[in-house]
Amino acid sequence: MSYFMNRKDDIITEAVDGLIAASGGKLSRLDGYPHIRVVTRADWDKSKVALVSGGGSGHEPAHAGFVGEGMLTAAVCGDVFASPSVDAVLAAILTVTGPGGCLLVVKNYTGDRLNFGLAAERARAFGLSVEMVIVDDDIALPHLHNARGVAGTLFVHKIAGALAERGADLATVTAAARKVIDGTKTIGMSLDTCTVPGSPKENRIAEGMAELGLGIHGEPGVEQIQYESAHQAMAAIAAKLTDVMDDRPHVAILNNLGGTSGLEMSVLTNELRESPIGGRIQHIIGPAPVMTSLDMRGFSVSIYPADDEELALLAEAVPLAAWPALTELQPVRTLDLPDGLTPVPPMPSEHQPTRQFLTRCCEILIEAEADLNALDAKAGDGDTGSTLAHAAHALLDAMDRMPLADHTQLFRAIGLELSQTMGGSSGVLLAIFFAATGDGAASGMSMGEALSAGLARMQEIGGANLGDRTMVDALAPALAALPDGVGAGARAARKGADETAGMREAKAGRASYISAEQLEGHIDPGAEAVARLFEHIAAMEDSEQPQARMSAG
Amino acid sequence: MSYFMNRKDDIITEAVDGLIAASGGKLSRLDGYPHIRVVTRADWDKSKVALVSGGGSGHEPAHAGFVGEGMLTAAVCGDVFASPSVDAVLAAILTVTGPGGCLLVVKNYTGDRLNFGLAAERARAFGLSVEMVIVDDDIALPHLHNARGVAGTLFVHKIAGALAERGADLATVTAAARKVIDGTKTIGMSLDTCTVPGSPKENRIAEGMAELGLGIHGEPGVEQIQYESAHQAMAAIAAKLTDVMDDRPHVAILNNLGGTSGLEMSVLTNELRESPIGGRIQHIIGPAPVMTSLDMRGFSVSIYPADDEELALLAEAVPLAAWPALTELQPVRTLDLPDGLTPVPPMPSEHQPTRQFLTRCCEILIEAEADLNALDAKAGDGDTGSTLAHAAHALLDAMDRMPLADHTQLFRAIGLELSQTMGGSSGVLLAIFFAATGDGAASGMSMGEALSAGLARMQEIGGANLGDRTMVDALAPALAALPDGVGAGARAARKGADETAGMREAKAGRASYISAEQLEGHIDPGAEAVARLFEHIAAMEDSEQPQARMSAG
Repeated sequence: MSYFMNRKDDIITEAVDGLIAASGGKLSRLDGYPHIRVVTRADWDKSKVALVSGGGSGHEPAHAGFVGEGMLTAAVCGDVFASPSVDAVLAAILTVTGPGGCLLVVKNYTGDRLNFGLAAERARAFGLSVEMVIVDDDIALPHLHNARGVAGTLFVHKIAGALAERGADLATVTAAARKVIDGTKTIGMSLDTCTVPGSPKENRIAEGMAELGLGIHGEPGVEQIQYESAHQAMAAIAAKLTDVMDDRPHVAILNNLGGTSGLEMSVLTNELRESPIGGRIQHIIGPAPVMTSLDMRGFSVSIYPADDEELALLAEAVPLAAWPALTELQPVRTLDLPDGLTPVPPMPSEHQPTRQFLTRCCEILIEAEADLNALDAKAGDGDTGSTLAHAAHALLDAMDRMPLADHTQLFRAIGLELSQTMGGSSGVLLAIFFAATGDGAASGMSMGEALSAGLARMQEIGGANLGDRTMVDALAPALAALPDGVGAGARAARKGADETAGMREAKAGRASYISAEQLEGHIDPGAEAVARLFEHIAAMEDSEQPQARMSAG
Repeated sequence: MSYFMNRKDDIITEAVDGLIAASGGKLSRLDGYPHIRVVTRADWDKSKVALVSGGGSGHEPAHAGFVGEGMLTAAVCGDVFASPSVDAVLAAILTVTGPGGCLLVVKNYTGDRLNFGLAAERARAFGLSVEMVIVDDDIALPHLHNARGVAGTLFVHKIAGALAERGADLATVTAAARKVIDGTKTIGMSLDTCTVPGSPKENRIAEGMAELGLGIHGEPGVEQIQYESAHQAMAAIAAKLTDVMDDRPHVAILNNLGGTSGLEMSVLTNELRESPIGGRIQHIIGPAPVMTSLDMRGFSVSIYPADDEELALLAEAVPLAAWPALTELQPVRTLDLPDGLTPVPPMPSEHQPTRQFLTRCCEILIEAEADLNALDAKAGDGDTGSTLAHAAHALLDAMDRMPLADHTQLFRAIGLELSQTMGGSSGVLLAIFFAATGDGAASGMSMGEALSAGLARMQEIGGANLGDRTMVDALAPALAALPDGVGAGARAARKGADETAGMREAKAGRASYISAEQLEGHIDPGAEAVARLFEHIAAMEDSEQPQARMSAG
């Protein structure tokens, strides 16, 4: 698996620089590359308790993404999944610690404990007040008395960070952090391992299996279980958590371990709410990636029974894009569907000339079925004729329901009928044409203006321009010529339709996937249908039924 | 590949419910499940222009994640990668549109154009003012006059959303949206395809290849190129964008297509800054997932030359966790490394009794090398004796540099020496022990108290408790007995060390990986070393060099 990086040795320094560059001036780093990679608040004045965290990289946004007002003062970034050096931690402490002192928030891994611990000793030799807390929220291995530190660390960052920002002293911040650590529990599940930069991907988890109780460094989970569904996954998580929860209301962090899609995380949110522990989870942070394991396809749930003061600290807004905010987990609110989804059928009315005109139009399309299908077979799937004939039959069947005496309503009614009976894009586009024409007519436009408005709307939605080898190539010139009479319109439609045979490139619709050679010489079937309609209408006007046409002036 | 979902048909409804449940009461949905999945602002009063977007799902957080104050009023969620129905869009419009009217922001896909377009027509038939804009920011296919809508859509959501929130009228909001669309360009690259829920994963992109100019629905990219590095990837992106950029300062959206790790996204941020177009990118939104393609391992860059008013609209804070905020893309700020990283060597001083005492201690450890290695071979890698002997040799070599006459400084100096010469966890732990003891001594503690403080700190950092089968099992009882004399301390150390042979479970250190059967009957080598030291010190006190010991009272 390739990785978006350059030299493996540079991945952390380049990522830190990227983070700082996009921080809008809020972050700085120490000038200690390549070994010392420390991100600090640019605005820090040492007047308050400094909060320093860090550890191996690969857990982004933790920890550098949480450096900022109200959370961390500095983060020390080790190599991927490897503790930073004592010197790097010491450099961070010495840089940010003033009279207020410094609290180190360390996840419970031997390397981090030792390196942060020794750095703290060295810093104390300079007379600095340095405290250290060790986060051990993982409950995957209940028999291990040194539990790992995982996503629950974010509770500590936020509560201690908010307290420090308010100006609390080191003892207060440290005691608050210890209290949070005592009450925080986390368990995770994954469907796939992570991709470690520069290493081949380990395919440890078979299809249909999941790891329960995993760490965040690619280490195997405590157990592999059959994976069935999001529901079963969250049930397994809830079963682990319920053993360590009391009846108080809890806050949950729903953490994306990196590679889980947003869709899945929201499904899991829903499952958490509906799980056996859902009733005890009153607030949620996320779903969001807060403590990832690179691109691991999994999630974790951290819980903490925050009291009112801690809730206030968790809820305080911070200017950090990585912090997902605290929200109340609530029942889903629904609104009634609006009226109007079921269209009000138009009031039927009779108008013999209109009935005859419409009937004749439908017959023209039905008669043209085979010819139009044949044309369409050259450039598409050969069904344009059948689609139009089907719509025409449906319109004939609907004739008794139509407001034939109210031409303004009639256009909308035809549009509605077509949208309900005619499949595919062309049905929707014709429905839009007739609906927009009806709108135009209703707003007082002349019939010609209204038809042009309908065409414009259809083009806007369909994206077809003149010359794109669609029905527009016949319809647009026909409508433009209508002021000179239906005969002129028909001639223009025919000319436009015939010209589509010379268009070597279709830019819209299905024909756009066909090569120029295949298209050449064949009239677009939609344009042909329009031309035939206009020609027959013109013939009607000229001869047998001069009163049957709809006014097009 | 498994997916965190239940029935495939329920994935969108469950995800929408999860999103709403975690919104803290800020979102509602229409009561139209399963087909109508519309997310709306819970606080909407229809007094302003409503902004409605949507389309196929699988692009989370787009679009429902951007429903909220200052962005969208409602989002219509189709199935994965499939347009929502006309009815669903109409339901959204009818629910949120009041006198201010409604703007539909639609990505340029035929299904979305038609369904949103027809819904708009139906809504207009109710007398509502509805406008529609079509986002076509993708430049992957420059010859296609219907470019796709991708991540640049977020520029439209934010600028139009901020304007609508300020109370601008529909014409103003629509015109602003059209201007943004005209100027927005996007191109993406991916190293792997996305995992479509319920479908087998398509392995289209070979190892070492990347797709340039991809869409967000799993469709193939315009070209596959050799993938070399993040640098080369961003260079390819910049080469596409530079053709469509002028010299004005631009805003960039750096979008995570879903499955790219945070580490990689920050590396790409750095590359964007350093790319040929970096100088023209004055502001950045992200890196963040804003318009994903499920879990696709890729990214996209969208650019827009925002003017000052548009910058202000983009910068306006919104209470949406999914919106990553606008920041200035700036040079990386660095701070000088602090003084103190190179420890100040202690001022050497001579004190013969101390020199003799320390020398003897070192000799004891050197003499014990083979025995301690043999003990360690039962439970570890057999090097405890050599590690301690190596440290003892180093301490002997350093004797002339030691502040022998200043016992407070001497502890710190020994700690420093050990941390620099003794490898592994035990070296760091002993360094912490001596440093903390020195701290205690410097703060006025008695030597016994200081040694106990050192032990406490070492235990806190190392995580070893009494009974965990470590050196603590000898050291702790020895220090506890010291007030009764060194002889009592030695007897307590020996007793403690001997008891480790009966401890069947090591809870800290490397021996914790060894079975009880393998451990039983063998004394822990660290505890044995402590016992031997104390025994020899007691023997010295009893006989030949009563003045050589350091005061332990």
